[in-house]
Amino acid sequence: MHTPELKAQGPILDKAPRVGASDTTVHGEVSVSLIEYGPQGCHETLFSSVAEGLAYQTKAEVLWLNVYGLANPELMQAIGQRFGLHPLVQEDILSVRQRPKVEEYDGYLFLATRVFHYLAGEERRLQSEPMYMVVGQGFVLTFQPHPLGVFGAVRERLKKPDSMLRLHGADFLAYTLIDAVIDDYFGVLDDFGNRVETIDRQLLADKSGGVLRSIHRLKYEGMRLRRALLPLRDMLNQMTRGDLPQFRPETRLWLRDAFDHCLHLLESLDASRDMVAGMLDLYLSIQSNRLNVQMRVLTIISIIFMPLTLIAGIYGMNFDYMPELHWRWGYFAVLAVMGLIGAGIAFSFSRRRWL
Amino acid sequence: MHTPELKAQGPILDKAPRVGASDTTVHGEVSVSLIEYGPQGCHETLFSSVAEGLAYQTKAEVLWLNVYGLANPELMQAIGQRFGLHPLVQEDILSVRQRPKVEEYDGYLFLATRVFHYLAGEERRLQSEPMYMVVGQGFVLTFQPHPLGVFGAVRERLKKPDSMLRLHGADFLAYTLIDAVIDDYFGVLDDFGNRVETIDRQLLADKSGGVLRSIHRLKYEGMRLRRALLPLRDMLNQMTRGDLPQFRPETRLWLRDAFDHCLHLLESLDASRDMVAGMLDLYLSIQSNRLNVQMRVLTIISIIFMPLTLIAGIYGMNFDYMPELHWRWGYFAVLAVMGLIGAGIAFSFSRRRWL
Amino acid sequence: MHTPELKAQGPILDKAPRVGASDTTVHGEVSVSLIEYGPQGCHETLFSSVAEGLAYQTKAEVLWLNVYGLANPELMQAIGQRFGLHPLVQEDILSVRQRPKVEEYDGYLFLATRVFHYLAGEERRLQSEPMYMVVGQGFVLTFQPHPLGVFGAVRERLKKPDSMLRLHGADFLAYTLIDAVIDDYFGVLDDFGNRVETIDRQLLADKSGGVLRSIHRLKYEGMRLRRALLPLRDMLNQMTRGDLPQFRPETRLWLRDAFDHCLHLLESLDASRDMVAGMLDLYLSIQSNRLNVQMRVLTIISIIFMPLTLIAGIYGMNFDYMPELHWRWGYFAVLAVMGLIGAGIAFSFSRRRWL
Amino acid sequence: MHTPELKAQGPILDKAPRVGASDTTVHGEVSVSLIEYGPQGCHETLFSSVAEGLAYQTKAEVLWLNVYGLANPELMQAIGQRFGLHPLVQEDILSVRQRPKVEEYDGYLFLATRVFHYLAGEERRLQSEPMYMVVGQGFVLTFQPHPLGVFGAVRERLKKPDSMLRLHGADFLAYTLIDAVIDDYFGVLDDFGNRVETIDRQLLADKSGGVLRSIHRLKYEGMRLRRALLPLRDMLNQMTRGDLPQFRPETRLWLRDAFDHCLHLLESLDASRDMVAGMLDLYLSIQSNRLNVQMRVLTIISIIFMPLTLIAGIYGMNFDYMPELHWRWGYFAVLAVMGLIGAGIAFSFSRRRWL
Amino acid sequence: MHTPELKAQGPILDKAPRVGASDTTVHGEVSVSLIEYGPQGCHETLFSSVAEGLAYQTKAEVLWLNVYGLANPELMQAIGQRFGLHPLVQEDILSVRQRPKVEEYDGYLFLATRVFHYLAGEERRLQSEPMYMVVGQGFVLTFQPHPLGVFGAVRERLKKPDSMLRLHGADFLAYTLIDAVIDDYFGVLDDFGNRVETIDRQLLADKSGGVLRSIHRLKYEGMRLRRALLPLRDMLNQMTRGDLPQFRPETRLWLRDAFDHCLHLLESLDASRDMVAGMLDLYLSIQSNRLNVQMRVLTIISIIFMPLTLIAGIYGMNFDYMPELHWRWGYFAVLAVMGLIGAGIAFSFSRRRWL
Repeated sequence: MHTPELKAQGPILDKAPRVGASDTTVHGEVSVSLIEYGPQGCHETLFSSVAEGLAYQTKAEVLWLNVYGLANPELMQAIGQRFGLHPLVQEDILSVRQRPKVEEYDGYLFLATRVFHYLAGEERRLQSEPMYMVVGQGFVLTFQPHPLGVFGAVRERLKKPDSMLRLHGADFLAYTLIDAVIDDYFGVLDDFGNRVETIDRQLLADKSGGVLRSIHRLKYEGMRLRRALLPLRDMLNQMTRGDLPQFRPETRLWLRDAFDHCLHLLESLDASRDMVAGMLDLYLSIQSNRLNVQMRVLTIISIIFMPLTLIAGIYGMNFDYMPELHWRWGYFAVLAVMGLIGAGIAFSFSRRRWL
Repeated sequence: MHTPELKAQGPILDKAPRVGASDTTVHGEVSVSLIEYGPQGCHETLFSSVAEGLAYQTKAEVLWLNVYGLANPELMQAIGQRFGLHPLVQEDILSVRQRPKVEEYDGYLFLATRVFHYLAGEERRLQSEPMYMVVGQGFVLTFQPHPLGVFGAVRERLKKPDSMLRLHGADFLAYTLIDAVIDDYFGVLDDFGNRVETIDRQLLADKSGGVLRSIHRLKYEGMRLRRALLPLRDMLNQMTRGDLPQFRPETRLWLRDAFDHCLHLLESLDASRDMVAGMLDLYLSIQSNRLNVQMRVLTIISIIFMPLTLIAGIYGMNFDYMPELHWRWGYFAVLAVMGLIGAGIAFSFSRRRWL
Repeated sequence: MHTPELKAQGPILDKAPRVGASDTTVHGEVSVSLIEYGPQGCHETLFSSVAEGLAYQTKAEVLWLNVYGLANPELMQAIGQRFGLHPLVQEDILSVRQRPKVEEYDGYLFLATRVFHYLAGEERRLQSEPMYMVVGQGFVLTFQPHPLGVFGAVRERLKKPDSMLRLHGADFLAYTLIDAVIDDYFGVLDDFGNRVETIDRQLLADKSGGVLRSIHRLKYEGMRLRRALLPLRDMLNQMTRGDLPQFRPETRLWLRDAFDHCLHLLESLDASRDMVAGMLDLYLSIQSNRLNVQMRVLTIISIIFMPLTLIAGIYGMNFDYMPELHWRWGYFAVLAVMGLIGAGIAFSFSRRRWL
Repeated sequence: MHTPELKAQGPILDKAPRVGASDTTVHGEVSVSLIEYGPQGCHETLFSSVAEGLAYQTKAEVLWLNVYGLANPELMQAIGQRFGLHPLVQEDILSVRQRPKVEEYDGYLFLATRVFHYLAGEERRLQSEPMYMVVGQGFVLTFQPHPLGVFGAVRERLKKPDSMLRLHGADFLAYTLIDAVIDDYFGVLDDFGNRVETIDRQLLADKSGGVLRSIHRLKYEGMRLRRALLPLRDMLNQMTRGDLPQFRPETRLWLRDAFDHCLHLLESLDASRDMVAGMLDLYLSIQSNRLNVQMRVLTIISIIFMPLTLIAGIYGMNFDYMPELHWRWGYFAVLAVMGLIGAGIAFSFSRRRWL
Repeated sequence: MHTPELKAQGPILDKAPRVGASDTTVHGEVSVSLIEYGPQGCHETLFSSVAEGLAYQTKAEVLWLNVYGLANPELMQAIGQRFGLHPLVQEDILSVRQRPKVEEYDGYLFLATRVFHYLAGEERRLQSEPMYMVVGQGFVLTFQPHPLGVFGAVRERLKKPDSMLRLHGADFLAYTLIDAVIDDYFGVLDDFGNRVETIDRQLLADKSGGVLRSIHRLKYEGMRLRRALLPLRDMLNQMTRGDLPQFRPETRLWLRDAFDHCLHLLESLDASRDMVAGMLDLYLSIQSNRLNVQMRVLTIISIIFMPLTLIAGIYGMNFDYMPELHWRWGYFAVLAVMGLIGAGIAFSFSRRRWL
């Protein structure tokens, strides 16, 4: 079990000693498709059962086996045995806990990455799914939990009669699939950037604090995207440097381009994240500014009305001997004094900008 | 004393020249178990005294000596002499002040790490204990202050008749034990993540400030976990790189997997810590927002009622000559004026969103 | 298509097999100019159509082809074929998504950078455009979306009879163009610095919060400039280190100077950005200080007037038996008491600086 | 003067050509002690004058010269000449401005570090003093401004008849002295940690702001300790790596242990510093929370009492025609209305948690 | 012009083909002094014109040419040609935009650094000037815009008959000059540290916000100093590593000391900057604390007086039937009730520390 053997040139899924009569397990969410191609042509086969797949024979130059649905240990074991995958690789593909990485094994590479998409619905929650890839001599295996359409365009290109893709080997297919994943990220990041701008426009109008929660959700999503992109960048950097013999020199030039796109993704994500951080600061400064304005208004109002109310209170006292009360123009004099005091205070505020 | 000699192939604990009659000290909290195994079988022995252990003879391929209870210098010295441990290693195991590290000595490795667990009870405090391991040619020694059950699963696997574990050497056992420690961290981090989410849900409802202290406690715990995981990651990285001859190349592939799990732990911890930091910011912004709302309410209330109270005060003055008081509809006119002023201010606020 | 061939010594744009009758597409915003020079002289030709350019023959030592307008795939393909550019380079030049970088291809270098300028108008928005350069043996190609005048000075220097520029090769021209781009940044950063200082002067006077939005816009612009300058610095560093054979050792000394200017740009940008960050902090601290002053005033006013208003209210009560009301000097006594209380509170504040 | 010569095997302080009749300067605070030892024994001599020291002869294997009091250029010069110290080393030891470092000279090492201690007294101020060490072939020189007792335990160990210390060379003595310095730091950091915890307990009770100043002082002290520990760590790392021939391989294992202790010190310091930073944040959040509570109370009180006071004011007006005043139950009706309004507002607050 | 030739052993400023009759330009602010020395002696010459300088002949071992005043292209060109300086060096010295750096040219080093000083006057503004140095075989050139006295002490030391300085070459002179620059920084940083402490003492007393602006100015100054010291440190590190053949091994030991002083400068600057940052935090926390105290006072005052004022208002109403008004002790009962309510509220606050 610890000495992986590479048997990719032979038929696919030819034997599954430990799976036995488990054909029935390959149903429901699990679906397996095999694309085999070369300069001459391209052929796709969909398998409805493992047994069917095991009986299949091929002579094509490049094989691409795509599996949707990960929770199937028997299928995994069959594939693992057919392509000589190390137990650790099989375990990694089956487990949910995988961080993006590239690992070199004897004769093949194992790549793990994540694919993001926004859920439909009012809330537009950001979700992610793992995507695994094994790149060997003449074959590429891809594993995803659900069909999200990331590889649709690649499949179309392969089926076109004069496709350049068919002229290259399995390593170029691997590059093309990684490029499709990166293209998918561009869409997600555009979406993210649009939401940041939408909320930026709502920032000044908001008084209820609803925008605050949105900003914080954007912040979390930005962190999650970054956490997925950083190892992807490291993966691509490692592949570009040329340490991995699976990728031929002419493919490395294209990988360098994919690496560059990944750097671009990270920079545009960082720009959006800076904007979110700035929005949060701006929101809080606007709040603080508003508080100041309110406080100033309250203070001015209090300074103006408190003395006037006191004066009115004084002449509302019931003392027997209050000479002013009996003056002919006392009432108007008091009103005038009140008006003068109020105007004076207001004037001194507007003049000296004291507060 | 400075020239450590490796005598692991001979009997365990056969002589203890400096311990003398200290058999009685190996009681209470200290317990020593020895598991010896090979492809043929596995045997576990529990020692109730050092003397008993000293008399024990073994011929198995791999020895695993597990000690619970660290505060026993005589036992330490006996074991140290039996396995040729450097005085510094003995000192490190006995001391409480140890940071996670891996140190290479002549013929064996010394590993120190920490194991975390949540105390039962209302408060669920996070506690940690040191865990020491010595990996040599054909033997693994583990030292822990208390039995926490981290290695229970490994012991079970060893005892299973067809266990793959028995086919490998001491280095694979060391990997398996480290993996058990990492699995233990996964549980602790899940627990930590759950508590973060629980408090996140309480965030908006809280007005008493109780949630604030909880957030800060989570922040501390996150720091402590990070401080334990970082050196663990460095340890595993060092072991994976292959500088250490104790680990054979085929085991290194498995160590790389453990290293990867450790990176995963750190990333998931960082995600939780980012969430805690975001919660703190969010809490403070919500507070600030609330303050603003209260201030706005207070200011509006003051602006509406202060002028009205002044008017009522003015007509409560006792001047002899106040013509309005004697008008037929004066009272209702004043009430109407008051109503108009109040409504006007309220209207202007709602209209111009002045505050 | 994957084996780039260098044919720069032959005529420019001599054939365009895939462009066909697309001459009409090279109009409107696209304009192509060719400068050819050597120690003997310098000649500039403007092409109004691709066909015209394709028919052109040259024998000069250095060719500089400058293209304004990027959205023209046919022109790009013609140039690409003429100078043997890799499909990835052509794709990069046509795409809008390009981060600053330098890439080495077989026989030539591809450089991508950004040029910034402030839009005219009230708001003075900061805009950027990509600028691409290909440096090969005896030729330099530059691509820009619009004529912004960055290379005007270089063109002038080339046309001067005794220009030192003509004595050097294509690599020195490339250095001169990069230096022109860097000089352009100095202008933009001066402008940026001036705006920072303008807003710094408005900081203390502002009460409306308008300055807040300006500070945040400066913050974003600073980030954008930094994000463009950082890869430019890395590019120049790479060129200076001498890994790229396109640049001869004597040119590298000049590139080191350009690298140094780029470091200077970054430091002066960082100084401005620190100032912006400081302004934001200062603004918020001033706000907080103002809030404190207002609060102190409000509190003092309330402490002084609330007791006095209560006293006035008490003597405004209508109880039958209130002896003070009938005292001869009751009213004046109350006024005096009020004055004393008010003065006492004010005195205690000014004396003990209690608040 | 620039060609240092190592003459450590000869007698100590035998000649002091430039010091001359300066014996009288070696009094007061300066005190010199010489410990000479080997496997056979250990002997300590205290010198009351330089001349006395110059006349002293020794044959021991290891010499440890300890000097208290640094401000004595003549003594420094005598020692410098006796042990062949570079002028820069002499200058460094005499100057107050020294950062922790290790410097390799021809034949000996110069180490500078700092020793911390808390001053007695109410305030418990943290103070530091420089500590210099020169490690050569067969001798160790230590220089301190005052006797702080850091090396007391080492001196005791040397004097014990069966001390292991005597069996090793000067490099092991140097390690032991460095270890004593590190042990001293453990005490200081424990003290620091205790004070952090003391203030943490006072945090919630404090309303005067006194705790704020204490937190800030702890923050400064933490920075100072960190600034001293970081270069100490680098020093030890450098010594452990084995670049310095003064330390033999068997001593390096012990130095690695000291390095590890130093990392432990830094981690525990960082934990305390994180706690201080968290306390500051917590203090401010508690403040902000308290402000919110106060504001809520003030707003609720104002909303309840302002309308009621207005109503009371209205019925205190002196209009001739106010029908309600003459109703039989008008007064009680108004009281009832007031009660209803107050209760209604209070109820709506408690019900809808509006603020 | 691109092949610099070293002609330092010949006469200084002997020919100036491109300067022509520009002798008159060397007046006003420009002043040139030449110090020539060797073990035998030292001689200083002041030139009042370039022609005078050009005619001067020397045979001394080391030449130090010091120029005050940079805005003189003709003089620069003359010196550049005499010492074979690269056009880039000449350009750098003439330009104002120079960041600290060390650059190696064929046969000499070019060093650029900055010198700081505080302007006299009330505000004590921090100003900086560039300082350039060229170190070649047997000569050192220094360029400064104004005489600031930084090199005064070096000049004095050179003129002393038994100066050690004269025994060493040009590289030691260069070290001595750099050391003088570093000593100058010590003075500036002491000044900076003193101002930080002065403002720290004013912190608690300030209520006007004036201290806030001072803190922010210190923050800026700290950043500027740091930005000048960081490249100086890198310069010295590069010189110490020994890559530059201009500095002989025995000088490198002294450069290491200068490097160390530079690290010390940076650490003490960082300590001051941390203190400034802490002061800002402390100021804001004090503000926040004060706001809290004020708010508490305001809230307590409002809670006490608002109910009492309402009660007084109620008994000031003019209803015909208000039985309490006619009670014999109604007035005193109300006063008593008021007193009880006020005391009760005050008591409950002081008792339960509710706010």
